[in-house]
Amino acid sequence: MKKYAYGIDVGGTTVKCGLFETDGTFVKGWEIPTVKDNGGAQILPDIAAAIKGSMAEEGISADDVEGVGIGVPGPVTESGVVNGCVNLGWGVYDVKTALSGLLDGAKVEVGNDANVAALGEMWRGGGKGYRNVVMVTLGTGVGGGIILGGKILHGAHGAGGEIGHITVNRNETLACGCGKKGCLEQYASATGIARKAREVLATPKAEGSSLLKVENVDAKAVFDAAKTGDKTALAIVDFFGRTLGQAVATITAVVDPDVIVVGGGVSKAGQILLDAVVKYYTPNAFNACKETPFKLAVLGNNAGMYGAVKMVLD
Amino acid sequence: MKKYAYGIDVGGTTVKCGLFETDGTFVKGWEIPTVKDNGGAQILPDIAAAIKGSMAEEGISADDVEGVGIGVPGPVTESGVVNGCVNLGWGVYDVKTALSGLLDGAKVEVGNDANVAALGEMWRGGGKGYRNVVMVTLGTGVGGGIILGGKILHGAHGAGGEIGHITVNRNETLACGCGKKGCLEQYASATGIARKAREVLATPKAEGSSLLKVENVDAKAVFDAAKTGDKTALAIVDFFGRTLGQAVATITAVVDPDVIVVGGGVSKAGQILLDAVVKYYTPNAFNACKETPFKLAVLGNNAGMYGAVKMVLD
Repeated sequence: MKKYAYGIDVGGTTVKCGLFETDGTFVKGWEIPTVKDNGGAQILPDIAAAIKGSMAEEGISADDVEGVGIGVPGPVTESGVVNGCVNLGWGVYDVKTALSGLLDGAKVEVGNDANVAALGEMWRGGGKGYRNVVMVTLGTGVGGGIILGGKILHGAHGAGGEIGHITVNRNETLACGCGKKGCLEQYASATGIARKAREVLATPKAEGSSLLKVENVDAKAVFDAAKTGDKTALAIVDFFGRTLGQAVATITAVVDPDVIVVGGGVSKAGQILLDAVVKYYTPNAFNACKETPFKLAVLGNNAGMYGAVKMVLD
Repeated sequence: MKKYAYGIDVGGTTVKCGLFETDGTFVKGWEIPTVKDNGGAQILPDIAAAIKGSMAEEGISADDVEGVGIGVPGPVTESGVVNGCVNLGWGVYDVKTALSGLLDGAKVEVGNDANVAALGEMWRGGGKGYRNVVMVTLGTGVGGGIILGGKILHGAHGAGGEIGHITVNRNETLACGCGKKGCLEQYASATGIARKAREVLATPKAEGSSLLKVENVDAKAVFDAAKTGDKTALAIVDFFGRTLGQAVATITAVVDPDVIVVGGGVSKAGQILLDAVVKYYTPNAFNACKETPFKLAVLGNNAGMYGAVKMVLD
């Protein structure tokens, strides 16, 4: 094993770049802008230039670099082909071959950003010590990543772990971003929690809630109020916990992981969030999976860089 | 690769034994009774004796046998430890080590019977040519098996692919065999279809249905009547298709397989069954998975023996 590897996490606005030692030590991180002009044609050349610049700056030769891992916000097949990234302007794109070509044949591994973050949390985060991990990322949307035997479950169409789009409510009238109605993402994301809060706060049940005094109630405000014992906020958290807990019970009956890691901005609410989920997970889980532990993610926005590095080490 | 391998499928009444060539040719099959006395202590010695008897009869030496694969009706971990088989009287039991010991150190691989059948269908059946398969087995219950990258997804607690116990109806009042309420198995199994038929036939809506003349309506009678255009039977089939189609859409958003194989006694209904499932699968599936094909299983009760052999070849 060579001494260094690079982990790259491509987002819609910035690309996070990390230099790591292959023992998992995070040496240095920096960001470059994501240039989406011309169908995102500049993104990989910019990344290649950033890596070459770092190597020159640090005095690292190509012989010292094990490889470059990269996570992208779209479906990725096992062979490293991206099946369209709307956010970046990419269509079907063989990122593995293209980036390797820009880096003089360096080893490149590519994964979906949520899957790669799950791998990072398994390697150095909330799933450390486990080989079979389901990660649920609660942000603007709901992302998911499944790691089995230490490897990403990419899926036949790059859609492995797309758990935000499990249908959980067949009576929903509003469409999800994916076009279906009633997806988990519509209830368990920051956006979904805020929507539910607005609905509840417009009813007489919310009388006396501290949330009525908050302008633009978001998920954080809901969890903060719940921690003070606000009954309306607690009811919204309970609804969230029921929806996500039941969905995770379905997921564990399918893949039976060692651990469930919950990450993303919403997970910063901490133990109150896990408690709400576990309350409904346990009675809905298949017997053999009832005791499967829930853990909070710990790497935050760096999980993608860690996971990207881990891909090239395997 | 040696010339022969044995595939064993342990059921609650009989043990199916198969001698195969390692190229997949089925040479000879036979059955022995499953002796469940004394906590099933005799089952593995009986199997070992059956294999040794076959080897003597066929003039096969130990040097010609690649190994023995065995499927059992209970959860099995990746290391071949069975976590209790109520049907056989077994508790936690290291079947891999025990059977290998009885066979002079032969290579033994162990799997859950539904998972092993899925592997068999991938190797030589409805999933031939694919490496990522979800198999749904519709029998007295609903079994499932998931094959990823050509390997069984055992799961951390041997519960990988336990899709019969996904909760699909949160308003169910009757308990499933597993203790939960509203499991897929309660609606999509032969038992579940017959129960739904009894409910529907007791209502005025069923007036004029040919099923009213059938004593002890079972799943086969329902599908047979549906094929003649019986409206009541078609409605029962539609309910079945909706329940299973929605559930499979959830499963594919989690593991994104190449193909879904439907087997078990109920699947003998054929294309009408697949059509009913696909009708509800497609609108409920995540975009990338909408075109995932459904296939009928083809190996019938032999799938377990085929899959057991495949385990030892990998």
